[in-house]
Amino acid sequence: MLTRADYSAAQSRAASLIRESGIYITDKEVEMVEVADFGLSRLDMEGAQILTLVATDRIAVKIIVLFPRQTIPEHWHPRVGEDPGKEETVRVVSGTVRFYISGDESMREGFVLAGQEDAYTVRHELILKPGDQITLQPGSKHWFQTGEEAVMYSFSTVARDVLDCFTDPHIERVTRIQE
Amino acid sequence: MLTRADYSAAQSRAASLIRESGIYITDKEVEMVEVADFGLSRLDMEGAQILTLVATDRIAVKIIVLFPRQTIPEHWHPRVGEDPGKEETVRVVSGTVRFYISGDESMREGFVLAGQEDAYTVRHELILKPGDQITLQPGSKHWFQTGEEAVMYSFSTVARDVLDCFTDPHIERVTRIQE
Repeated sequence: MLTRADYSAAQSRAASLIRESGIYITDKEVEMVEVADFGLSRLDMEGAQILTLVATDRIAVKIIVLFPRQTIPEHWHPRVGEDPGKEETVRVVSGTVRFYISGDESMREGFVLAGQEDAYTVRHELILKPGDQITLQPGSKHWFQTGEEAVMYSFSTVARDVLDCFTDPHIERVTRIQE
Repeated sequence: MLTRADYSAAQSRAASLIRESGIYITDKEVEMVEVADFGLSRLDMEGAQILTLVATDRIAVKIIVLFPRQTIPEHWHPRVGEDPGKEETVRVVSGTVRFYISGDESMREGFVLAGQEDAYTVRHELILKPGDQITLQPGSKHWFQTGEEAVMYSFSTVARDVLDCFTDPHIERVTRIQE
Protein backbone atom coordinates (compact mmCIF):
# COMPACT_ATOMS: atom_id res chain seq x y z
CA MET A 1 0.00 0.00 0.00
CA LEU A 2 1.33 3.39 -1.01
CA THR A 3 -0.27 6.79 -0.69
CA ARG A 4 -0.97 8.59 -3.94
CA ALA A 5 1.59 11.21 -2.92
CA ASP A 6 4.29 8.61 -2.25
CA TYR A 7 3.53 6.94 -5.58
CA SER A 8 3.82 10.20 -7.50
CA ALA A 9 6.99 11.22 -5.69
CA ALA A 10 8.65 7.89 -6.49
CA GLN A 11 7.51 8.16 -10.09
CA SER A 12 9.04 11.56 -10.67
CA ARG A 13 12.21 10.70 -8.76
CA ALA A 14 12.63 7.60 -10.95
CA ALA A 15 11.98 9.58 -14.13
CA SER A 16 14.66 12.08 -13.16
CA LEU A 17 17.16 9.30 -12.55
CA ILE A 18 16.34 7.76 -15.94
CA ARG A 19 16.98 11.06 -17.66
CA GLU A 20 20.16 11.70 -15.69
CA SER A 21 21.41 8.29 -16.80
CA GLY A 22 21.31 9.51 -20.41
CA ILE A 23 18.19 7.64 -21.51
CA TYR A 24 15.75 9.81 -23.43
CA ILE A 25 12.13 9.33 -22.37
CA THR A 26 9.13 11.40 -23.31
CA ASP A 27 6.98 13.36 -20.87
CA LYS A 28 4.19 10.87 -21.52
CA GLU A 29 6.49 8.03 -20.51
CA VAL A 30 7.23 9.77 -17.20
CA GLU A 31 3.56 9.25 -16.33
CA MET A 32 3.87 5.56 -17.20
CA VAL A 33 6.57 4.77 -14.65
CA GLU A 34 5.21 2.00 -12.45
CA VAL A 35 6.04 2.06 -8.75
CA ALA A 36 6.06 -1.47 -7.31
CA ASP A 37 6.07 -2.12 -3.59
CA PHE A 38 5.28 -5.83 -4.10
CA GLY A 39 2.46 -5.45 -1.60
CA LEU A 40 4.97 -5.09 1.23
CA SER A 41 4.37 -1.39 1.98
CA ARG A 42 8.05 -0.58 2.51
CA LEU A 43 8.98 0.80 -0.89
CA ASP A 44 12.27 2.33 0.22
CA MET A 45 13.50 -1.10 1.30
CA GLU A 46 11.82 -3.60 -1.01
CA GLY A 47 10.51 -2.21 -4.25
CA ALA A 48 11.31 -0.99 -7.73
CA GLN A 49 10.35 1.65 -10.27
CA ILE A 50 9.75 0.29 -13.75
CA LEU A 51 9.07 1.91 -17.11
CA THR A 52 7.90 -0.50 -19.80
CA LEU A 53 8.99 0.65 -23.26
CA VAL A 54 7.96 -2.42 -25.23
CA ALA A 55 5.49 -5.14 -24.31
CA THR A 56 4.31 -7.36 -27.12
CA ASP A 57 3.29 -11.00 -26.89
CA ARG A 58 6.88 -11.92 -27.82
CA ILE A 59 9.27 -9.45 -26.14
CA ALA A 60 9.49 -6.81 -23.42
CA VAL A 61 11.86 -3.91 -22.77
CA LYS A 62 11.81 -2.20 -19.41
CA ILE A 63 13.84 0.40 -17.62
CA ILE A 64 14.29 -0.47 -13.95
CA VAL A 65 15.26 2.18 -11.40
CA LEU A 66 16.42 1.38 -7.89
CA PHE A 67 16.74 4.00 -5.19
CA PRO A 68 19.64 3.76 -2.72
CA ARG A 69 19.62 0.48 -0.77
CA GLN A 70 16.40 -0.64 -2.45
CA THR A 71 16.02 -4.37 -3.09
CA ILE A 72 13.95 -6.19 -5.71
CA PRO A 73 12.77 -9.32 -3.90
CA GLU A 74 13.92 -12.79 -4.96
CA HIS A 75 11.82 -14.13 -7.79
CA TRP A 76 11.84 -16.27 -10.92
CA HIS A 77 9.95 -16.47 -14.17
CA PRO A 78 8.09 -19.76 -14.48
CA ARG A 79 6.98 -21.76 -17.47
CA VAL A 80 3.57 -20.62 -18.76
CA GLY A 81 1.93 -23.06 -21.13
CA GLU A 82 4.19 -23.46 -24.15
CA ASP A 83 6.42 -20.60 -23.04
CA PRO A 84 9.43 -22.04 -21.15
CA GLY A 85 9.44 -18.86 -19.06
CA LYS A 86 10.90 -15.39 -19.40
CA GLU A 87 14.54 -15.15 -20.44
CA GLU A 88 15.88 -11.80 -19.28
CA THR A 89 19.03 -9.81 -19.90
CA VAL A 90 19.69 -7.00 -17.43
CA ARG A 91 22.15 -4.32 -18.55
CA VAL A 92 23.26 -1.62 -16.15
CA VAL A 93 23.11 1.95 -17.45
CA SER A 94 24.11 3.94 -14.37
CA GLY A 95 25.12 3.10 -10.83
CA THR A 96 26.24 -0.20 -9.39
CA VAL A 97 23.91 -3.16 -8.99
CA ARG A 98 24.44 -6.09 -6.64
CA PHE A 99 23.02 -9.08 -8.38
CA TYR A 100 22.26 -12.39 -6.67
CA ILE A 101 21.86 -15.74 -8.40
CA SER A 102 22.26 -19.35 -7.38
CA GLY A 103 25.78 -20.60 -6.77
CA ASP A 104 28.38 -20.44 -4.03
CA GLU A 105 27.49 -17.96 -1.29
CA SER A 106 29.65 -14.91 -1.99
CA MET A 107 27.72 -11.96 -0.61
CA ARG A 108 30.17 -9.23 0.35
CA GLU A 109 28.75 -5.84 -0.57
CA GLY A 110 25.04 -6.52 -0.19
CA PHE A 111 22.76 -7.29 2.70
CA VAL A 112 19.57 -9.17 3.48
CA LEU A 113 16.94 -7.21 5.37
CA ALA A 114 16.60 -8.27 8.99
CA GLY A 115 13.77 -10.75 9.40
CA GLN A 116 13.69 -11.51 5.66
CA GLU A 117 16.40 -14.17 5.60
CA ASP A 118 14.03 -16.89 4.33
CA ALA A 119 12.93 -14.71 1.43
CA TYR A 120 16.46 -14.38 -0.02
CA THR A 121 17.86 -17.83 -0.62
CA VAL A 122 20.30 -17.37 -3.52
CA ARG A 123 23.39 -15.47 -2.48
CA HIS A 124 26.00 -15.71 -5.20
CA GLU A 125 26.96 -12.07 -5.67
CA LEU A 126 27.78 -10.33 -8.94
CA ILE A 127 28.63 -6.63 -8.95
CA LEU A 128 27.44 -5.01 -12.18
CA LYS A 129 28.52 -1.57 -13.35
CA PRO A 130 27.48 0.48 -16.40
CA GLY A 131 27.83 -1.59 -19.56
CA ASP A 132 27.81 -4.88 -17.62
CA GLN A 133 24.97 -7.26 -18.33
CA ILE A 134 23.73 -10.67 -17.27
CA THR A 135 21.32 -13.06 -18.98
CA LEU A 136 18.99 -15.00 -16.69
CA GLN A 137 17.52 -18.26 -17.89
CA PRO A 138 13.84 -19.00 -17.27
CA GLY A 139 13.15 -20.41 -13.84
CA SER A 140 16.39 -19.18 -12.26
CA LYS A 141 15.96 -17.38 -8.95
CA HIS A 142 17.44 -13.90 -8.70
CA TRP A 143 17.21 -10.67 -6.77
CA PHE A 144 19.10 -7.43 -6.86
CA GLN A 145 19.95 -4.40 -4.81
CA THR A 146 21.77 -1.11 -4.90
CA GLY A 147 24.08 0.84 -2.69
CA GLU A 148 23.47 4.15 -4.44
CA GLU A 149 20.72 4.64 -7.02
CA ALA A 150 20.93 2.71 -10.27
CA VAL A 151 19.23 2.54 -13.66
CA MET A 152 19.21 -0.57 -15.82
CA TYR A 153 17.52 -2.06 -18.86
CA SER A 154 15.68 -5.36 -18.80
CA PHE A 155 15.47 -6.94 -22.25
CA SER A 156 13.38 -10.09 -22.28
CA THR A 157 11.01 -12.46 -23.92
CA VAL A 158 7.33 -11.83 -23.19
CA ALA A 159 6.74 -10.50 -19.67
CA ARG A 160 3.82 -11.78 -17.63
CA ASP A 161 4.66 -9.99 -14.40
CA VAL A 162 1.61 -11.12 -12.48
CA LEU A 163 2.68 -14.74 -13.00
CA ASP A 164 6.20 -14.21 -11.62
CA CYS A 165 6.98 -16.34 -8.58
CA PHE A 166 8.42 -14.83 -5.39
CA THR A 167 10.14 -16.61 -2.53
CA ASP A 168 8.44 -14.34 0.03
CA PRO A 169 4.84 -15.62 0.34
CA HIS A 170 3.63 -12.18 1.46
CA ILE A 171 4.34 -10.62 -1.90
CA GLU A 172 1.60 -9.44 -4.21
CA ARG A 173 2.72 -8.17 -7.60
CA VAL A 174 0.02 -5.49 -7.61
CA THR A 175 0.71 -2.19 -5.88
CA ARG A 176 -2.32 -0.87 -4.01
CA ILE A 177 -2.76 2.86 -3.74
CA GLN A 178 -4.38 4.45 -0.72
CA GLU A 179 -6.50 7.35 -1.96
CA MET B 1 33.54 -4.34 -50.38
CA LEU B 2 35.08 -1.93 -47.91
CA THR B 3 38.73 -1.24 -47.23
CA ARG B 4 39.94 -2.04 -43.74
CA ALA B 5 40.54 1.68 -43.20
CA ASP B 6 37.00 2.61 -44.28
CA TYR B 7 35.58 -0.09 -42.03
CA SER B 8 37.53 1.12 -39.00
CA ALA B 9 36.68 4.75 -39.67
CA ALA B 10 32.95 3.95 -39.88
CA GLN B 11 33.19 1.88 -36.73
CA SER B 12 34.72 4.63 -34.65
CA ARG B 13 32.46 7.31 -36.10
CA ALA B 14 29.44 5.17 -35.20
CA ALA B 15 30.74 4.53 -31.69
CA SER B 16 31.17 8.26 -31.14
CA LEU B 17 27.60 8.91 -32.26
CA ILE B 18 26.31 6.19 -29.92
CA ARG B 19 28.12 7.79 -27.00
CA GLU B 20 27.01 11.30 -27.96
CA SER B 21 23.42 10.02 -27.98
CA GLY B 22 23.74 9.24 -24.27
CA ILE B 23 24.03 5.46 -24.55
CA TYR B 24 26.82 4.03 -22.45
CA ILE B 25 28.92 1.42 -24.27
CA THR B 26 32.18 -0.13 -23.20
CA ASP B 27 35.47 0.18 -25.08
CA LYS B 28 35.19 -3.51 -25.94
CA GLU B 29 31.78 -2.87 -27.50
CA VAL B 30 33.25 -0.15 -29.72
CA GLU B 31 35.30 -2.89 -31.39
CA MET B 32 32.13 -4.93 -31.91
CA VAL B 33 30.33 -2.33 -34.03
CA GLU B 34 29.48 -4.00 -37.32
CA VAL B 35 29.70 -1.95 -40.50
CA ALA B 36 27.27 -3.26 -43.13
CA ASP B 37 27.46 -2.20 -46.75
CA PHE B 38 25.03 -4.94 -47.83
CA GLY B 39 27.53 -5.98 -50.49
CA LEU B 40 26.78 -2.81 -52.47
CA SER B 41 30.13 -1.03 -51.87
CA ARG B 42 28.56 2.40 -51.36
CA LEU B 43 28.39 2.57 -47.58
CA ASP B 44 27.72 6.29 -47.39
CA MET B 45 24.54 5.84 -49.44
CA GLU B 46 23.24 2.36 -48.57
CA GLY B 47 24.52 0.89 -45.35
CA ALA B 48 24.32 0.83 -41.58
CA GLN B 49 26.45 0.53 -38.47
CA ILE B 50 25.13 -1.95 -35.93
CA LEU B 51 26.16 -2.87 -32.40
CA THR B 52 24.54 -6.04 -31.07
CA LEU B 53 24.10 -5.88 -27.30
CA VAL B 54 22.02 -9.02 -26.84
CA ALA B 55 21.64 -12.00 -29.16
CA THR B 56 20.16 -15.14 -27.67
CA ASP B 57 18.08 -17.74 -29.43
CA ARG B 58 14.97 -15.84 -28.27
CA ILE B 59 15.68 -12.09 -28.41
CA ALA B 60 18.05 -9.50 -29.85
CA VAL B 61 18.93 -5.92 -28.92
CA LYS B 62 20.89 -3.81 -31.32
CA ILE B 63 21.94 -0.20 -31.61
CA ILE B 64 21.70 1.04 -35.19
CA VAL B 65 23.58 4.13 -36.33
CA LEU B 66 22.92 5.91 -39.60
CA PHE B 67 25.21 8.55 -41.00
CA PRO B 68 23.70 11.56 -42.80
CA ARG B 69 21.57 10.55 -45.81
CA GLN B 70 22.39 6.87 -45.30
CA THR B 71 19.66 4.37 -46.20
CA ILE B 72 19.07 0.86 -44.89
CA PRO B 73 17.76 -1.03 -47.92
CA GLU B 74 14.21 -2.36 -48.04
CA HIS B 75 13.96 -5.75 -46.37
CA TRP B 76 11.74 -8.02 -44.33
CA HIS B 77 12.14 -10.79 -41.79
CA PRO B 78 10.75 -14.06 -43.10
CA ARG B 79 9.35 -17.09 -41.34
CA VAL B 80 12.09 -19.56 -40.37
CA GLY B 81 10.81 -23.00 -39.42
CA GLU B 82 8.55 -22.62 -36.41
CA ASP B 83 9.52 -18.97 -35.94
CA PRO B 84 6.91 -16.73 -37.65
CA GLY B 85 9.73 -14.27 -38.35
CA LYS B 86 11.40 -11.46 -36.47
CA GLU B 87 9.14 -8.96 -34.74
CA GLU B 88 11.08 -5.72 -34.30
CA THR B 89 10.51 -2.50 -32.40
CA VAL B 90 12.71 0.41 -33.46
CA ARG B 91 13.02 3.28 -30.98
CA VAL B 92 14.83 6.45 -31.94
CA VAL B 93 17.41 7.73 -29.44
CA SER B 94 18.87 10.70 -31.31
CA GLY B 95 18.28 12.36 -34.66
CA THR B 96 15.33 12.01 -36.99
CA VAL B 97 14.59 8.83 -38.91
CA ARG B 98 12.46 8.56 -42.04
CA PHE B 99 10.75 5.24 -41.85
CA TYR B 100 9.02 3.54 -44.80
CA ILE B 101 6.41 0.83 -44.54
CA SER B 102 3.60 -0.41 -46.76
CA GLY B 103 0.58 1.85 -47.11
CA ASP B 104 -0.41 4.95 -49.05
CA GLU B 105 2.55 6.58 -50.78
CA SER B 106 3.39 9.58 -48.60
CA MET B 107 7.11 10.20 -49.10
CA ARG B 108 7.83 13.87 -48.51
CA GLU B 109 11.14 14.24 -46.67
CA GLY B 110 12.97 11.19 -47.95
CA PHE B 111 14.35 10.14 -51.30
CA VAL B 112 15.05 7.02 -53.30
CA LEU B 113 18.53 6.75 -54.78
CA ALA B 114 18.61 7.28 -58.53
CA GLY B 115 18.50 3.96 -60.36
CA GLN B 116 17.32 2.11 -57.26
CA GLU B 117 13.58 2.74 -57.68
CA ASP B 118 12.75 -0.97 -58.00
CA ALA B 119 14.55 -1.75 -54.74
CA TYR B 120 12.35 0.56 -52.64
CA THR B 121 8.74 -0.41 -53.14
CA VAL B 122 7.04 0.60 -49.87
CA ARG B 123 6.74 4.35 -49.52
CA HIS B 124 4.44 5.18 -46.65
CA GLU B 125 6.54 7.67 -44.68
CA LEU B 126 6.76 7.99 -40.92
CA ILE B 127 9.03 10.58 -39.36
CA LEU B 128 10.40 9.34 -36.04
CA LYS B 129 12.14 11.53 -33.50
CA PRO B 130 13.78 10.68 -30.15
CA GLY B 131 11.39 8.67 -27.99
CA ASP B 132 9.26 7.65 -30.98
CA GLN B 133 9.08 3.97 -31.76
CA ILE B 134 7.44 1.62 -34.23
CA THR B 135 6.79 -2.12 -34.03
CA LEU B 136 7.18 -4.07 -37.27
CA GLN B 137 5.41 -7.37 -37.65
CA PRO B 138 7.23 -10.33 -39.20
CA GLY B 139 7.22 -10.32 -42.98
CA SER B 140 6.43 -6.60 -43.35
CA LYS B 141 8.70 -4.75 -45.76
CA HIS B 142 10.48 -1.69 -44.41
CA TRP B 143 13.45 0.58 -45.00
CA PHE B 144 14.73 3.70 -43.35
CA GLN B 145 16.89 6.70 -43.91
CA THR B 146 18.26 9.79 -42.24
CA GLY B 147 18.70 13.41 -43.09
CA GLU B 148 21.28 14.05 -40.39
CA GLU B 149 22.86 11.24 -38.38
CA ALA B 150 20.68 9.16 -36.09
CA VAL B 151 20.97 6.51 -33.40
CA MET B 152 18.21 4.04 -32.61
CA TYR B 153 17.55 0.83 -30.72
CA SER B 154 16.19 -2.30 -32.35
CA PHE B 155 14.47 -4.58 -29.85
CA SER B 156 13.37 -7.85 -31.38
CA THR B 157 12.73 -11.53 -31.23
CA VAL B 158 15.61 -13.71 -32.34
CA ALA B 159 17.64 -12.15 -35.16
CA ARG B 160 18.88 -14.29 -38.03
CA ASP B 161 20.32 -11.49 -40.13
CA VAL B 162 21.71 -13.70 -42.87
CA LEU B 163 18.19 -14.98 -43.57
CA ASP B 164 16.67 -11.50 -43.97
CA CYS B 165 15.12 -10.89 -47.38
CA PHE B 166 15.97 -7.81 -49.43
CA THR B 167 14.10 -6.36 -52.38
CA ASP B 168 17.35 -5.51 -54.17
CA PRO B 169 18.67 -8.81 -55.62
CA HIS B 170 22.24 -7.49 -55.57
CA ILE B 171 22.37 -7.38 -51.81
CA GLU B 172 24.54 -9.72 -49.78
CA ARG B 173 24.20 -9.46 -46.03
CA VAL B 174 27.91 -10.13 -45.52
CA THR B 175 30.32 -7.19 -45.73
CA ARG B 176 33.55 -8.09 -47.48
CA ILE B 177 36.71 -6.34 -46.41
CA GLN B 178 39.48 -5.61 -48.85
CA GLU B 179 42.80 -6.15 -47.07
